[in-house]
Amino acid sequence: MTPKEAYSELLEISRRVAIFSSFGSLLGWDQRTYMPKKAANYRALQYASLMEYIYEILTSDRFGKLIEIAEKGEYDLRGKMNIYWWRRGYDRLTKIPKSLYVEEARVSSESESVWVEAKKKGDFNLVKPYLERLINIKKEMAEHMGYEGERYNALLDSYEPELRAEYVSEIFTNLKGETLRLLNVVINSGKKPKGEILKGHFPKDKQREFCLFLLKSIGYDFDAGRLDETVHPFATMITPNDVRITTKYEEDFISPSIFGTLHEMGHGLYDMGLPEDMWAEPVGSAVSLGVHESQSRFWENIIGRSEAFWKRFYKDLSDHFPKFKDIPLEDFLFAVNEIKPSTIRIEADELTYNLHIILRFEIEREVINDKVSVDDLPDLWNEKFKSMFGFYPPNISEGVLQDIHWYGGSFGYFPTYTLGNIISAQIFAKMKEDLPVYELVERGEFQPIINWLKEKIHSKGSLYKPSELVKRATGEDINPKYLINYLEDKVKRFYG
Amino acid sequence: MTPKEAYSELLEISRRVAIFSSFGSLLGWDQRTYMPKKAANYRALQYASLMEYIYEILTSDRFGKLIEIAEKGEYDLRGKMNIYWWRRGYDRLTKIPKSLYVEEARVSSESESVWVEAKKKGDFNLVKPYLERLINIKKEMAEHMGYEGERYNALLDSYEPELRAEYVSEIFTNLKGETLRLLNVVINSGKKPKGEILKGHFPKDKQREFCLFLLKSIGYDFDAGRLDETVHPFATMITPNDVRITTKYEEDFISPSIFGTLHEMGHGLYDMGLPEDMWAEPVGSAVSLGVHESQSRFWENIIGRSEAFWKRFYKDLSDHFPKFKDIPLEDFLFAVNEIKPSTIRIEADELTYNLHIILRFEIEREVINDKVSVDDLPDLWNEKFKSMFGFYPPNISEGVLQDIHWYGGSFGYFPTYTLGNIISAQIFAKMKEDLPVYELVERGEFQPIINWLKEKIHSKGSLYKPSELVKRATGEDINPKYLINYLEDKVKRFYG
Repeated sequence: MTPKEAYSELLEISRRVAIFSSFGSLLGWDQRTYMPKKAANYRALQYASLMEYIYEILTSDRFGKLIEIAEKGEYDLRGKMNIYWWRRGYDRLTKIPKSLYVEEARVSSESESVWVEAKKKGDFNLVKPYLERLINIKKEMAEHMGYEGERYNALLDSYEPELRAEYVSEIFTNLKGETLRLLNVVINSGKKPKGEILKGHFPKDKQREFCLFLLKSIGYDFDAGRLDETVHPFATMITPNDVRITTKYEEDFISPSIFGTLHEMGHGLYDMGLPEDMWAEPVGSAVSLGVHESQSRFWENIIGRSEAFWKRFYKDLSDHFPKFKDIPLEDFLFAVNEIKPSTIRIEADELTYNLHIILRFEIEREVINDKVSVDDLPDLWNEKFKSMFGFYPPNISEGVLQDIHWYGGSFGYFPTYTLGNIISAQIFAKMKEDLPVYELVERGEFQPIINWLKEKIHSKGSLYKPSELVKRATGEDINPKYLINYLEDKVKRFYG
Repeated sequence: MTPKEAYSELLEISRRVAIFSSFGSLLGWDQRTYMPKKAANYRALQYASLMEYIYEILTSDRFGKLIEIAEKGEYDLRGKMNIYWWRRGYDRLTKIPKSLYVEEARVSSESESVWVEAKKKGDFNLVKPYLERLINIKKEMAEHMGYEGERYNALLDSYEPELRAEYVSEIFTNLKGETLRLLNVVINSGKKPKGEILKGHFPKDKQREFCLFLLKSIGYDFDAGRLDETVHPFATMITPNDVRITTKYEEDFISPSIFGTLHEMGHGLYDMGLPEDMWAEPVGSAVSLGVHESQSRFWENIIGRSEAFWKRFYKDLSDHFPKFKDIPLEDFLFAVNEIKPSTIRIEADELTYNLHIILRFEIEREVINDKVSVDDLPDLWNEKFKSMFGFYPPNISEGVLQDIHWYGGSFGYFPTYTLGNIISAQIFAKMKEDLPVYELVERGEFQPIINWLKEKIHSKGSLYKPSELVKRATGEDINPKYLINYLEDKVKRFYG
């Protein structure tokens, strides 16, 4: 068999895997939107069977052998990168024994259920044994996978290819210092928005109507996408031309639906902009969680919370919700840009959000690198939180029990959120050199912005590793200074 | 390998096929409810890949060999019937060359699109070449499958196991004569409902609310099911505890949503009542289209158009649609039971509906048995129609171009509709011996009725062939006299 033949069989296998994976995407979308609740057990069975089928293909000796042969050929960028991703995926999957994957799936599923209970009761001890087992499983997986430097790198790499903890740490240390400095400015200013501007009664139907209006105004293609309601909003690509986003409506609080929708739209536009002709190949996929998050954060925050955006849409908002007719735009703008330290990550503002992430990064890195034991986690959390925010979380449910990630076995995931913020600001800085971004937004002309993102990011798929993609799009390595400048401007604008 | 070992491997394969087929059910449901329209091409690809995967399993030499070995063992009813269905399915699939299946899929897909155009333009010649090719494919398939008696039997058997044209013909001849006799009574009575009782303005939201109210009142389990909107209503089982029905809302006509919902609910209740512990085995499935249709027709017509039903729900209907406050129940009842010959099958009343089917049965039987050529179809249709209904269809779109079935390659399907009507009336007659059916309906007590159906029909899955199932449930062979009696009562009630 020649390398060329092997490559072409690999493409066929990829195609099959892409198609069968798309069943999983639909199962997932359905489960979180419309599935009747008694169907849950069978849905779990459907997933497990599908995943096992895909796992078998991707870990087969045949697949490994084909990669080996294909690697001997000469390729253009597309071919070279396909082989890079096949090799990477195959090695990661086959280095870890199947029994460990099965155990992880079982333990994390149990653990997530127990976590719900533990969080409700505020009892860390309930879930502690599960967390300990999961941490041991993840450590063992990291050892199987192998890594350079510290063990935590193996996990980080799962979510953000080739990202290293040492690098993250350097960036985060810088960001943390600057954030604390800016937070001090905010606190010392004594300023805050007037009253409860974003609270009130906002009927679900009206919120949905307004979110659809925003999406259509921006140019989200509803012939190739949808907006549905869910509990924990997400975006998902079923196939090309079928990218679905979800949001949730809180009838007493207008923010979650609007900014949640814009966030998921950012994810959705990325998926819609991926190179369709490469769909079923590794290079046709989104490249990493961090880059994905840069797209959602760009639309949610940089565009969605901007003065230009609301100059464009505030009248429409008031038409949907008369309450805003009596509120000056400036007051509304301040409200959606309010900076206020709080205990809950997902409710955090743009500035303090990254502190929540840095805290989690510092802790999970120590946990995986054996620097700290599970027993110490609650106190460690509280002390770190105090040192950044200036106060203790009121209870453990808003402390170490706050997020599901660790209790589902996701270690190394959190940093991608802040990485997304950093990349979004860096992209924005570059985009402004090419386009009058906020002028376009104020005029309601979003297509040039979408086209810019599509050209520089979306259409590249996984042709470049994340760091190289950012470098090619912005002309330099990932650099937190753009996020810091952006946040500094914001602080000056509202708290200066 | 022992028969027992083979049987147990067959169960495993069945389980895998059931799970992967369930992905197809979800793909189908999604396609017809929420899928964005640009996704259509990829959806077709998803289907084709899934079907090919399942086809490969079910036609594999291994599968055939296992059946052969398993057949040598001794089994209880469940085991015996599983083997019967495996053998039947395997033989049918393997006797037909794969290339013919592929050609059928391709031609019928093209043909369906061209049919839409042809029907719109009223031009049979457009679609004629496709129809000819499809007929040739179906004849060839019948020859591969083999049959006793006439060739058409092979196709009939696909939809209704072991049903034979000679038998259908005997039943239909009887039914046709009696129907024409009753139709004469109707026409000679000169009676008809007052005005346009079922027309008006019925907002979609209100219709949906009323349909949900009916379903909940009857006892449809919304923790294990859904009601959604679609163009061509259907019911589908994704997995046990996940049975979804759909309906459509015409804002100027109240009937389609109500009776369509009750119809699909009948299908849904059947699927919900199948034996869950046998789900992934052949015996766990619904046994045939005819039996399925008996369940939908039972709820749509026998219950849904009954005086008892509307004595129970007419007040609720009026609460949703004030128009009915001014219309006496008796007038409404007459309107929903009106008998009026028309050209369109799917709009036909309970009496003339079967004439539409008998016409199609007579024609398709002749086509497949080489008694008539495609060129003759339009005229043959019109003449037969005239002989039954007394007038010609006004145009070919309401003639031979009316239904999609033939243009999608479905020959032998139509008779199952009337078979369903016949079985529903036979079941009803037997049920009345055990339960005061209409008294229960009037009191809103539907559970005993559902339980009766579940015990006698639903829970039996495919443990018995259709004819035996009916015999066990009702004590006799399929007999049209119950339907004739039922229709006679109806004619007397409104036209006597």
